Amino acid sequence: MTRTLNRAGLGAALGLAAFTAPALAHEASDVAANPPVAGEIGYIFTTFMFLVAGFLVMFMAAGFSMLEAGLVRTKNVTMQLTKNIALFAFAAIAYYVIGYHLMYPGEGWSIAGYLGAFSMAALEPVGLAGTETDLSYASVGSDFFFQLMFCATTASIVSGALAERIKLWPFLAFIIVLTALIYPIQASWKWGGGFLDSMGFLDFAGSTVVHSVGGWAALAGALILGPRLGKYKDGRVNPMPGSNLTLATLGTFILWLGWFGFNGGSQLYMNSAGNVADISRIFANTNTAAAGGAIAALILTQVVYKKVDLTMLLNGALAGLVSITAEPLTPSLGAATLIGAVGGVIVVIAVPFLDKLKIDDVVGAIPVHLCAGIWGTVAVVLTNSDASIVTQLISIIVVGVFVFGVSGVVWYILKLSMGIRVSEEDEVNGLDMSELGMEAYPEFGQGSQIS
Amino acid sequence: MTRTLNRAGLGAALGLAAFTAPALAHEASDVAANPPVAGEIGYIFTTFMFLVAGFLVMFMAAGFSMLEAGLVRTKNVTMQLTKNIALFAFAAIAYYVIGYHLMYPGEGWSIAGYLGAFSMAALEPVGLAGTETDLSYASVGSDFFFQLMFCATTASIVSGALAERIKLWPFLAFIIVLTALIYPIQASWKWGGGFLDSMGFLDFAGSTVVHSVGGWAALAGALILGPRLGKYKDGRVNPMPGSNLTLATLGTFILWLGWFGFNGGSQLYMNSAGNVADISRIFANTNTAAAGGAIAALILTQVVYKKVDLTMLLNGALAGLVSITAEPLTPSLGAATLIGAVGGVIVVIAVPFLDKLKIDDVVGAIPVHLCAGIWGTVAVVLTNSDASIVTQLISIIVVGVFVFGVSGVVWYILKLSMGIRVSEEDEVNGLDMSELGMEAYPEFGQGSQIS
Amino acid sequence: MTRTLNRAGLGAALGLAAFTAPALAHEASDVAANPPVAGEIGYIFTTFMFLVAGFLVMFMAAGFSMLEAGLVRTKNVTMQLTKNIALFAFAAIAYYVIGYHLMYPGEGWSIAGYLGAFSMAALEPVGLAGTETDLSYASVGSDFFFQLMFCATTASIVSGALAERIKLWPFLAFIIVLTALIYPIQASWKWGGGFLDSMGFLDFAGSTVVHSVGGWAALAGALILGPRLGKYKDGRVNPMPGSNLTLATLGTFILWLGWFGFNGGSQLYMNSAGNVADISRIFANTNTAAAGGAIAALILTQVVYKKVDLTMLLNGALAGLVSITAEPLTPSLGAATLIGAVGGVIVVIAVPFLDKLKIDDVVGAIPVHLCAGIWGTVAVVLTNSDASIVTQLISIIVVGVFVFGVSGVVWYILKLSMGIRVSEEDEVNGLDMSELGMEAYPEFGQGSQIS
Repeated sequence: MTRTLNRAGLGAALGLAAFTAPALAHEASDVAANPPVAGEIGYIFTTFMFLVAGFLVMFMAAGFSMLEAGLVRTKNVTMQLTKNIALFAFAAIAYYVIGYHLMYPGEGWSIAGYLGAFSMAALEPVGLAGTETDLSYASVGSDFFFQLMFCATTASIVSGALAERIKLWPFLAFIIVLTALIYPIQASWKWGGGFLDSMGFLDFAGSTVVHSVGGWAALAGALILGPRLGKYKDGRVNPMPGSNLTLATLGTFILWLGWFGFNGGSQLYMNSAGNVADISRIFANTNTAAAGGAIAALILTQVVYKKVDLTMLLNGALAGLVSITAEPLTPSLGAATLIGAVGGVIVVIAVPFLDKLKIDDVVGAIPVHLCAGIWGTVAVVLTNSDASIVTQLISIIVVGVFVFGVSGVVWYILKLSMGIRVSEEDEVNGLDMSELGMEAYPEFGQGSQIS
Repeated sequence: MTRTLNRAGLGAALGLAAFTAPALAHEASDVAANPPVAGEIGYIFTTFMFLVAGFLVMFMAAGFSMLEAGLVRTKNVTMQLTKNIALFAFAAIAYYVIGYHLMYPGEGWSIAGYLGAFSMAALEPVGLAGTETDLSYASVGSDFFFQLMFCATTASIVSGALAERIKLWPFLAFIIVLTALIYPIQASWKWGGGFLDSMGFLDFAGSTVVHSVGGWAALAGALILGPRLGKYKDGRVNPMPGSNLTLATLGTFILWLGWFGFNGGSQLYMNSAGNVADISRIFANTNTAAAGGAIAALILTQVVYKKVDLTMLLNGALAGLVSITAEPLTPSLGAATLIGAVGGVIVVIAVPFLDKLKIDDVVGAIPVHLCAGIWGTVAVVLTNSDASIVTQLISIIVVGVFVFGVSGVVWYILKLSMGIRVSEEDEVNGLDMSELGMEAYPEFGQGSQIS
Repeated sequence: MTRTLNRAGLGAALGLAAFTAPALAHEASDVAANPPVAGEIGYIFTTFMFLVAGFLVMFMAAGFSMLEAGLVRTKNVTMQLTKNIALFAFAAIAYYVIGYHLMYPGEGWSIAGYLGAFSMAALEPVGLAGTETDLSYASVGSDFFFQLMFCATTASIVSGALAERIKLWPFLAFIIVLTALIYPIQASWKWGGGFLDSMGFLDFAGSTVVHSVGGWAALAGALILGPRLGKYKDGRVNPMPGSNLTLATLGTFILWLGWFGFNGGSQLYMNSAGNVADISRIFANTNTAAAGGAIAALILTQVVYKKVDLTMLLNGALAGLVSITAEPLTPSLGAATLIGAVGGVIVVIAVPFLDKLKIDDVVGAIPVHLCAGIWGTVAVVLTNSDASIVTQLISIIVVGVFVFGVSGVVWYILKLSMGIRVSEEDEVNGLDMSELGMEAYPEFGQGSQIS
């Protein structure tokens, strides 16, 4: 009956015992369960940890939005924002209706199991009434909430790479397929206890399962979509600087913040001293890997280009975070710093390399999430004696082939059916006016008309 | 004596037992209470939950600031920011000096009780020294902190609707009355255990008690203040697009994040497996309702206007959140999605409808917080067998009449005494230069001179 | 073996007991420790509290970035962002390699002890395997994470004051010295259990140990660096308004949010009802002090200048926060409001006073962090009967002389060796184009060429 009382009893509970109105006191004691029994304590700890980690990861959606809105040109900002908030909303529904159960098929990984897994997520009853809850883990609601945010993160990765030229609705159609099917199916292979997990594949928080998946889906899309008009011309790369580096930096900080939930929550338990100490290790390692990635990019751009490049610095920090995601627990602080630093180096190399291949990735999502994601997955063997480099590589390839292949097919079908690219005229004018009729900064940014 | 030791003892406590300096060890053991006794554990859980939920709701003040600053024109941005940070500060003081005790009058709800309730909030003594604390709930400090943020949220709702034409000081005078008196008095009727609560009115986290109250106060203000110059001219609605949709989107994401604390914390207890599982349900439902609202607005604007409207999408998500606030616990994920989606539809209908009535609400606060707030309060009967539609409607009306009436009187007195509207010239030039002498974007936004 | 199982077992744990696949159940029970034993519970509470407080303080780095990027002119925004993210990264490494152990020398505070303390921070082994952990406190990892964020905050304070004219690399060189040596050494005197602590110096969360230290380092830098070109001319102060007050306001809100972690986490224990009630007091007091500072600045600028000044309002709120940081626990809500309000008054007085001295502090870091930091440290005696004004003053002076002196020497050496100031031409053109070749807002802010 907790629910119907809502805040009643607050009057009673709100003061020192001496202040409380006796007339209300019984209401408070009605509501307030007695102290948790011993068996509940670990459950409360882990569940609350998932909720805190989950809201941190949820906030990463804002981080991606700001990063991407800051790195596109003014004339495409409204569209980028629209895509980001819409993809998060569609991911929430698709993962609830199909994805969640597909990712954890429960009875096994047979085709029949998958078919049976096409059911909607359902939460425990209110107050756990009438259930025999397994108190050794956490509430379904908290697990669903936390896992959903990983699925949504995968979707967020895609939007940046394809910015400034893709139509809104085909993009959202792809997102629905990605979050309902592609992400959950491959995630089940590892985190749902499937064959990659049985093989001994290690990917603690998803350098491969989340980040490379977003990267592969983005790569397939970028190849089929083609580069922005004028990006590669006469053998030269035409820089198209982002419109708002302050917001890109804010986005990076928000992602950095959210990553504590991303990696820390992936410990999955906070019901013992050992588990909470491990989460602490993960927080410290996650932070230092980001620092390592940022500093590596800082120094490398200074040395190579003679000038520090802020966007590389931001992507370096993010690459550091992606790199440590496959194993944020076992490395020492020093090892974590170096793993992150290699991620930062990879980004500085991969960004111009993609341009050489004329693969136009507006925000650097492929270098950060795919390239550093592969590196992070390989790096697991450096600090885990039970990890096998062969297994890691096979898993990277299996996931890559599946996601790249299926994504390619989906993008291609969308291209044939709806068309995925705006007209040349619309692209030149910017998607904001042509597709949405709404400018992000209507009173300034006149440059949007001429760039 | 915890306090005076501060961080002393850290040297001791900081390493593995093997590292610690024996000389300091006793300091640590002085400070560190022994493991909590069983009776304390539930109290610690619930109190900490209030603090986490409370800081999330506090951050909503930043969300409102960014949303509103992004939706006003450049020439009024500094003023909108000033109002938002000032209203939060005044709410903090007014709720502490008067509002908190008025909302929880303790001894009952007689006039005498109210008069006795005019006293300042007081926290427990340091370390709970010398008190017999009721360990079945949470600390007064955490409850005060959490409840204050609800009061401040109510105030934040008002500022957006009245933007671009209201003077600073009369606005702040209204905020003081709202947060010291209007909000706490009506909140006491439900959450202080008053007559609406006795009648069986259900409003879990405040679709009515918070959101519609902000909406009614804003509506009264908007009617007395009148629309912006040139908004309604020759029977046409003159669009006045917001200056920065990126920050409006950021504000929406921050509000979405904060809402987990808003609704989740309203469970009021986290001292049992059932309570933490309920908070998990609330998190999941809150998120899916926002997604439902966003998608409904997305599709509806596409269908009706042939173009997706980002500001409607943002307000749709917020309306989804307001709609689920009256009952975020009992709905299934599917029901929560639909309840949120209806909220999104309401916004898309209500925004032009208000314009038809020539009620000028700059950011859409009335559609989002009042209209969706009423819907959410009614929707409680869909998932709660013990809810009565009559009671819900009576409560909506009682709160509405009270808040709209008293707000109207206060706005009117302010209009007669101080004047609430800036001069026509000042409004055309923008409040930033005329009232504050300070531009938000002095180096760009030259458009502010001509729009 | 928690680690290698990662998310395996989720399939089992994810549903109600009735849903779970028996085949997987044993995996879950392998991973999930049994309910925590009594001795672990306080350790989990305190450790998790450090992680939550720590990520809040980490987010303050984003707050400083937005505040500073908003208060510099467009032509220097990219540089200010670069400095902020780079300083955070360098602080993370420097504090890990040298600072942390220097701050907590463990064996004592002899010269030998310091020398022995030059070692890298090390975390507990995974799962606390093979250790006898002191369960009366928290994990080393969480303590390191939390303390690191304080060190990084100190560094963030410096960057704002020296903006728009200092070179990138000498600035970062100073940050390394500050975070590896200057901050940890003086922090050890109080928080490492050193001589200031023995004397009875009280500084709960660091009005002196963090904020004044940042302020002194900034002051030394500002004096040696000199004011911006044209700031003081013909006896007049030339205003150089910030480019983006919306982001400056966002930064302030983020700092306000982060401060709950800053002050609340400094309770250092959450293992008893008394400790969590104290953290609640701290949250409430921290909030009300910020409100007091904001309102004081609001009213004072209205009275003195006849117009409210938003940047003063923001700095007033921050000064209120700094003022309460030395003792956020013992004051009543009323006392905390007044202590914060005095901080707000100090800022309004100190900003023009510094200008009179021709000390050019771009964002007001010295008034906020140094002046209000001194006030907060003195104010401790108002609410703590065991505090001595003499001890507080001596400690302020000792820390001030040390930090100002050593910082001055370091700045001077950097000036002689690398040069710390950009050329006049580069300063006029803005650091973004001259030092980085990258504009923050390339499509607008044309004003940057002419201001």
